[in-house]
Amino acid sequence: MSNANPARGMRDFLPTDVRRREYVIGIIKQVYESYGFEPLETPAVENLETLTGKYGEEGSQLIFKILKRGEKLSANDKELADLALRYDLTVPLARVVANYRNDLPKFFKRYQIQPVWRADRPARGRFREFFQCDVDAIGSKSVIIEAEILSAASEILQRLGFEDFEIRLNHRELLRALLDKAGISESQHNDALVAIDKLDKIGREGVSKEFAQRGIDDEAGNNLFDLFERISRIGAEIKKDGFNINGEILAELTGFLDSLNNEWDDVLDQLKDILNLSGIDDSHIIIDPTLARGLSYYTGAIMEIVLTGGDFAGSIGGGGRYDELIGMFGKEQIPACGFSLGLERIIVVMTERNMFPADLQNASADVLVTIWNEDSAGESLKLANDLRSKGLRVLVYPEADKLGKQFKYASQVNAPFVCVLGETELAENKVTLKNMQSGAQETVSREDIVKKIQS
Amino acid sequence: MSNANPARGMRDFLPTDVRRREYVIGIIKQVYESYGFEPLETPAVENLETLTGKYGEEGSQLIFKILKRGEKLSANDKELADLALRYDLTVPLARVVANYRNDLPKFFKRYQIQPVWRADRPARGRFREFFQCDVDAIGSKSVIIEAEILSAASEILQRLGFEDFEIRLNHRELLRALLDKAGISESQHNDALVAIDKLDKIGREGVSKEFAQRGIDDEAGNNLFDLFERISRIGAEIKKDGFNINGEILAELTGFLDSLNNEWDDVLDQLKDILNLSGIDDSHIIIDPTLARGLSYYTGAIMEIVLTGGDFAGSIGGGGRYDELIGMFGKEQIPACGFSLGLERIIVVMTERNMFPADLQNASADVLVTIWNEDSAGESLKLANDLRSKGLRVLVYPEADKLGKQFKYASQVNAPFVCVLGETELAENKVTLKNMQSGAQETVSREDIVKKIQS
Repeated sequence: MSNANPARGMRDFLPTDVRRREYVIGIIKQVYESYGFEPLETPAVENLETLTGKYGEEGSQLIFKILKRGEKLSANDKELADLALRYDLTVPLARVVANYRNDLPKFFKRYQIQPVWRADRPARGRFREFFQCDVDAIGSKSVIIEAEILSAASEILQRLGFEDFEIRLNHRELLRALLDKAGISESQHNDALVAIDKLDKIGREGVSKEFAQRGIDDEAGNNLFDLFERISRIGAEIKKDGFNINGEILAELTGFLDSLNNEWDDVLDQLKDILNLSGIDDSHIIIDPTLARGLSYYTGAIMEIVLTGGDFAGSIGGGGRYDELIGMFGKEQIPACGFSLGLERIIVVMTERNMFPADLQNASADVLVTIWNEDSAGESLKLANDLRSKGLRVLVYPEADKLGKQFKYASQVNAPFVCVLGETELAENKVTLKNMQSGAQETVSREDIVKKIQS
Repeated sequence: MSNANPARGMRDFLPTDVRRREYVIGIIKQVYESYGFEPLETPAVENLETLTGKYGEEGSQLIFKILKRGEKLSANDKELADLALRYDLTVPLARVVANYRNDLPKFFKRYQIQPVWRADRPARGRFREFFQCDVDAIGSKSVIIEAEILSAASEILQRLGFEDFEIRLNHRELLRALLDKAGISESQHNDALVAIDKLDKIGREGVSKEFAQRGIDDEAGNNLFDLFERISRIGAEIKKDGFNINGEILAELTGFLDSLNNEWDDVLDQLKDILNLSGIDDSHIIIDPTLARGLSYYTGAIMEIVLTGGDFAGSIGGGGRYDELIGMFGKEQIPACGFSLGLERIIVVMTERNMFPADLQNASADVLVTIWNEDSAGESLKLANDLRSKGLRVLVYPEADKLGKQFKYASQVNAPFVCVLGETELAENKVTLKNMQSGAQETVSREDIVKKIQS
């Protein structure tokens, strides 16, 4: 008798789990398809060299490597692995774009919802196999892309039932302009960004300390923090009064950058255009100059979606423009902008907030048909097929058994109705229909069963 | 610049490929759900020990093993791997049944459609990552299970558009009874079954030779082959005349087994019941006493579905009852019956036979909306969102560009319609709608677009 648990950090998805995932994925796919994004799937297994060097040193440690096989696995070989499990969906996308450039349209908009594997230490909410849910648009530098990506993400969240989401929007070049203007030299920009990324968690004092440790000028830091605080006040004020919050923030940023110097006008215009074109209500989107996002490959707009409500605050998605990454397997640079929804986190929050439709809970069947005895089994199966042809999901009790046991099984699988086809019913060409919730029973003609069940 | 190909034996699924797979999987799921089967998903990665010893010596060679990580990977360790990729869906099911026995209903009917990985030598139609599509019902020995599994598989094939499928039905115990009766001793049964399994390919002469090589009595072999030929003749005859083909075959088998000895009546009754209860038309199901099916774990009914038409003859699914396998991770034996549809082969045949709906080919969007210039981009996006809210899939050209280029892109992505929103159209609150197939253009009011596109 072996251990029957799934491997460490891996999960089995029992029927209710699968249904919940499929419900969320179904809405995501429907919305992305309505925006013309197309599905892409890549294999779980990639050549190790495809992944090597793409995820930094820390990432490399987390790649699951696959042992060479047969004669390829020689004892003297230093490299024991030749393949590896997919680590994210971006590197495979870059590989696909390079490999099928001529088969893909000029602008390739794809979504991809597949598991990835990381040999991380498992923890609450952190698994070694988890789904990523990426959307990327390739081939255009236009902000129409950013606007549509945010618009789609916003529609997905609304259709899933989220009301307390806030899209935070920033721009890498704006951030660098602010750092410049504040007096932080370009060589210190990356250090500063790493520290600013923690502003949410460690506050102004914490970031100030990090600035000091990294030798960033005190006054420069204060210039920046003062600006951030003014903008944060605008955010807080507007929520009460209904002003044009993002307009005020943009004005503040324009002032800080110096309106006489229009070097940065293009970046501010991009943000304005994204806001306007996305059509997202101001209550769900805000320009946040403190948003840094860790990944170094972003080159333009960056965005993050957070839930602001109560116990479940935190990020449920993020992305941005990365114009210099997708060409890594090819000869040319290809502009790209992408967004990743935190599918696993969305499912956790929806579960804790009871946001799934009630009928996902008892979805194994709409009705159970009983078997009276072996001779009448054929009649029960015919009835079942008849009900299926009318669109019902029908479970047949697989054996002739005591009715009590058959009702008990119906409860166990949460079937809301049971059709009893006993001797009397067969003789009269009728069915006794039991409502499992109310316990009510009535004898109805076969034609009326579907109507009764649906009402 | 790295190699951009997928790893050996692995496939990328571009949008049209994904859509085809999803079309087939969608119908399979819908039908299985209508029979009360529930979805199960298990992780791609299993503990190596979970898989070890489950697939025979040949199978063991084909398991992809995952290298240990960090300090676990010591140079002195003989075992370099601790995890492995899922090799089939049956062992994970057995593990799940053992692990969640108390959470699962008494009868657990599950379907599972997930990839498996085998380090096989890639060949035409043979991949190292491929989908399996299994349905299994656990907990009952009743033939109602077999009947429903066949009925569901038959419905799936019909809904996919297959007309030339034939279900071959046999029973492991019937086979053994026939061997006994023919005069083949029990110790030679397995040898005989291995040879009979090849009857389709190598014919009576070939199997006779193998019998001789394995020391099986010549007369016993001839008894058996004569029976098989009589039954084969019944099959051929009936197809012309519309007799009760399976009734005739059962009568022939009963005669051969000796009607005075009713030891085997139960097995013949099981086959009769499966035929009757499944409700499948005689033109699609036939009792075939030569069907052996390789896997040794079957204990009762065995079945296979073949396509009989023209170039694409061959098996597209198979299964049977295996009452002694599913308990491998637990303490108790649990009866089970399962069926596996050959998803990859079904997709190949459907592609070659052009069985996919035409609109899967140009499914990236129902309509492309053009961008006239940067100032009117907002209007184009509004129009797009309006059309989406009415259920259309809408692609927006991401940039202001020459109209000719935008039409060219619409062709490239097979969008059947283009909405042009130019200066005149904006002024008049209308849209020019171009039918990309006919080339016809007409100016319509915004309200009429959806109607025009759908008609």
